[in-house]
Amino acid sequence: MTAKDFLAANSLLAERARLAIMAILAAADEPVDFSSLLEKLELSKGNLSSHVRKLEEAKLLRVHKEFVDRKPRTTFECTALGRRELRDYLSRLEAMLSAARADSGGQ
Amino acid sequence: MTAKDFLAANSLLAERARLAIMAILAAADEPVDFSSLLEKLELSKGNLSSHVRKLEEAKLLRVHKEFVDRKPRTTFECTALGRRELRDYLSRLEAMLSAARADSGGQ
Repeated sequence: MTAKDFLAANSLLAERARLAIMAILAAADEPVDFSSLLEKLELSKGNLSSHVRKLEEAKLLRVHKEFVDRKPRTTFECTALGRRELRDYLSRLEAMLSAARADSGGQ
Repeated sequence: MTAKDFLAANSLLAERARLAIMAILAAADEPVDFSSLLEKLELSKGNLSSHVRKLEEAKLLRVHKEFVDRKPRTTFECTALGRRELRDYLSRLEAMLSAARADSGGQ
């Protein structure tokens, strides 16, 4: 994985707020609700909504909507694809850094 | 380092092309010229120029201009500050990922 491949491999996770969202969801044992994410990330509501919408469209996370005590509650869960994408993104990053180091003799 | 801190810590290196540029320069033993960077990264010339200008303004890299065989040659070198910023950015990323994992019991 060279720097070129790293940049060519388009990933939603290249945006660090989305990377942080997926890191939290991938690590969680159960779905995480909107307000917990909001609190952990300190994004605006609109910003967080827009990021999760993109991640949902790409099937990296799944949205659940339910009523708890007659109040709507939205939770998010990492999909298997999301977990794979996160792992792959971090591997590509790591490989790019190693390649830069390995390549440095050749300058 | 929580996800919040990771997002709050503004860094030029949050943009992955700049991260890749700095990874290459930090690893190199000597200044790297413009065309080598261009080749390694497959960015457009304008795009690469704009990224290195920002990195230079932030003093993360140093630009050298010289004449070799009467042709202008521009090279880039990572500064000590650039090396530190790269190291810090990667530590923050790593810490954010660890924190997400450590935090996952508390959902």
